[in-house]
Amino acid sequence: MKFVVIGADAAGMSAASRAKRNDPDMEVIVLEKTSDVSYSACGMPYNIADATRGMDDLVVRPANVFREKQGIDVRTGHCVEGIDASRGKVFGSAQGAERFELNYDRLLIATGASPIWPQIQGVKLPGVLALKSLADGRRIKQVITEREVKTAVILGMGYIAMEMAEALRSRGMAVIMVKPRPRVLPWMPEKMAAELQKELEKNAVTLYPGQPIEGIEKGKNGLRVVCRDVCLDADLVVVAIGVTPNSDLAAGAGLKLSVDASIAVDRQLKTVDEAIFAAGDCADAFHVVTGQRCWIPLALRANRAGWAVADNVCGKSVALDGVAATAVFKAFDLQVARTGLTVPQASEAGFDPVQELIQTRSRAHAHPGAAAIWVQMVGDRQSGRLLGVQMLGREGVAHRINAGAVALHARMTVERFAQTDLAYAPPFGPVWDPLLTAANQLLKKM
Amino acid sequence: MKFVVIGADAAGMSAASRAKRNDPDMEVIVLEKTSDVSYSACGMPYNIADATRGMDDLVVRPANVFREKQGIDVRTGHCVEGIDASRGKVFGSAQGAERFELNYDRLLIATGASPIWPQIQGVKLPGVLALKSLADGRRIKQVITEREVKTAVILGMGYIAMEMAEALRSRGMAVIMVKPRPRVLPWMPEKMAAELQKELEKNAVTLYPGQPIEGIEKGKNGLRVVCRDVCLDADLVVVAIGVTPNSDLAAGAGLKLSVDASIAVDRQLKTVDEAIFAAGDCADAFHVVTGQRCWIPLALRANRAGWAVADNVCGKSVALDGVAATAVFKAFDLQVARTGLTVPQASEAGFDPVQELIQTRSRAHAHPGAAAIWVQMVGDRQSGRLLGVQMLGREGVAHRINAGAVALHARMTVERFAQTDLAYAPPFGPVWDPLLTAANQLLKKM
Repeated sequence: MKFVVIGADAAGMSAASRAKRNDPDMEVIVLEKTSDVSYSACGMPYNIADATRGMDDLVVRPANVFREKQGIDVRTGHCVEGIDASRGKVFGSAQGAERFELNYDRLLIATGASPIWPQIQGVKLPGVLALKSLADGRRIKQVITEREVKTAVILGMGYIAMEMAEALRSRGMAVIMVKPRPRVLPWMPEKMAAELQKELEKNAVTLYPGQPIEGIEKGKNGLRVVCRDVCLDADLVVVAIGVTPNSDLAAGAGLKLSVDASIAVDRQLKTVDEAIFAAGDCADAFHVVTGQRCWIPLALRANRAGWAVADNVCGKSVALDGVAATAVFKAFDLQVARTGLTVPQASEAGFDPVQELIQTRSRAHAHPGAAAIWVQMVGDRQSGRLLGVQMLGREGVAHRINAGAVALHARMTVERFAQTDLAYAPPFGPVWDPLLTAANQLLKKM
Repeated sequence: MKFVVIGADAAGMSAASRAKRNDPDMEVIVLEKTSDVSYSACGMPYNIADATRGMDDLVVRPANVFREKQGIDVRTGHCVEGIDASRGKVFGSAQGAERFELNYDRLLIATGASPIWPQIQGVKLPGVLALKSLADGRRIKQVITEREVKTAVILGMGYIAMEMAEALRSRGMAVIMVKPRPRVLPWMPEKMAAELQKELEKNAVTLYPGQPIEGIEKGKNGLRVVCRDVCLDADLVVVAIGVTPNSDLAAGAGLKLSVDASIAVDRQLKTVDEAIFAAGDCADAFHVVTGQRCWIPLALRANRAGWAVADNVCGKSVALDGVAATAVFKAFDLQVARTGLTVPQASEAGFDPVQELIQTRSRAHAHPGAAAIWVQMVGDRQSGRLLGVQMLGREGVAHRINAGAVALHARMTVERFAQTDLAYAPPFGPVWDPLLTAANQLLKKM
């Protein structure tokens, strides 16, 4: 059995490692176009925050360890340019020159995602950078040092943008964030978004929501981001407006695409071609709440899907339950988390959503050091089901959200969730956990 | 409708308040033998830690607010001495003198629990104190000040004992903990218990596990705790070896008792008498994992049961799902949490338990500031069900346990739990949440 993997990050290397563990005799070849394999991409903002750390800190296991210790044939600098599914072959160029062709018994496409670049002038100017690959991270660190960056403009206000804002502020730069749409995090209730905005401003991040970006120019000392009402001078521009799945190879091979042009896979991670799997940021998933296909590129799913592919390639039959869209990020001292559907998403999916937003405290009555916690909970009026939770606070948010995620997997009603026996001790929360208070309040409306 | 409540703490006042909210015309009378109502008992160790705070900080709502704002007839200093269930009457003495007799349409017994005193000489000596009521808390604070306590001996090593150790150390006292049985927390795997022991010792708490306590004597400057192999001089002795339900009244009225002599109630919190409910630390509960009756006196259950009683008294039909035995406590910088069954409990309940203990990290690969997290997970070999989780670590434990608790309520298998979509960001955990790693490892054994 010859198992070929395209892409050597989370999904690809999880699959390769597990396939080799499952079956040490299997021939496992990984083709990676860059020189980096298996790194913690999500750690990049935190690495950038620390001038003393090398970017290679984030490499979980270098290519030679995979080769020598695990017997995986990792070929870096190998860019796959096409898949001939009918003949079971991939082809491309190595080190930008030498052609190669490889046949496979089973193929995994784990090509990840790429940053979206805005359709404006000037995005190719030096100093305008996105953050997706380890090479991107290195480039940003290099620019910060070489240009002695004093001011950075970040395009976008999603979670990577927030993490970058914190990272750059921690290195003393002035940070300006700008985005065309008016709301900071549109999936958040306005009260929660206002708290996030306050936190950013408290940390001297300047925000320009609702500012269409018209172009980037060379300024007198660096770059200039031209927006509708304002021009922002910067030494560095970070583009963080989103990502798009790398599905061109799959499309070229005639595989079916799905939401946002991600690669359609079944619960076993198989594409429409029996011999070809897809996993990681390039592939879609089933949403455990809606049962529908969705594209939510996150690290846990990539790792989990990689494992499942390996098991299925090795003849097991592993089907994944799906994703609950659980996510968390840190913005300075705030923790922001979500799982499941927001109200608009719930309406769109055909539910009859009811929501409740509560504000409570992170510690018990009279316990010192408590901070506010906001919880929005969404339920379905008709079935009584819990549909989603959004949370924000200075402590006690990041891990609390998981109780909601498990409830979504279990298809619990709000009523049953309100009955769950959650942990209590004064330093860690009120007697009624914030999630239970939200559920109790939401029940009154349902 | 006349609703009489015996006991004015968590369960009693939750029931009284909610009954009055449900039906403002209802006559609600609460009989409380002490002068304190509705306080946060769990907050007492933290209050004791702070010499500047009055104990009344912990009062959530004073009696006169219940009376004046909510129209609840709260009668403090009223000690109920008997229940005549056949005639629907309670009787007792007010302020230690005046007799009273009251009839009821519905009665709630919410008499709580009392500390267990060891069967040894000297427990009545001044300076030997337990911690259960607010009066106990006041007495401990008073003794600390008046006797200028330098050394405290704590009998017991449960979570209240741990919280008291931290509280007394924070006020500069030398703290010695002693218990007859050899293991610090017997429900914990030994490796985890060893970490807890290290943390206590690091904070200069002296531990004597495995020391039978033979008596307490007057020493030359204070008290002396005489153990089998050692004598411990102290200015204060805190007894924290456990609690026992206050069920004598119920037993006297012919009501059925249950585990550990707690009052047997059905899912609607009814005793064997249709007109009499019981809730809080004096009553039993159904365990969501075993389906069996259990007695786990904790604050959330007391509050929730109080609400359910009120709803049922008002003609609704509210049945509680049960408890998962979820609990968390803080011991200096450690968080210790559990939900569901331990291995011995699982065996005893007729399961075929398999357990796995893992050690992982509280933050992502290469993220600074990570600490160790230990997770023990227990599953049932036959059904594949998740049965319990025990955790310990410096961060990321207290709220993480709730994901396990929800899974227990949902009767999830370990396999399904291993598929849940838990939140990930580098500051808050590894890509594979510690609970997922534990589940994945446990699956291999099942």
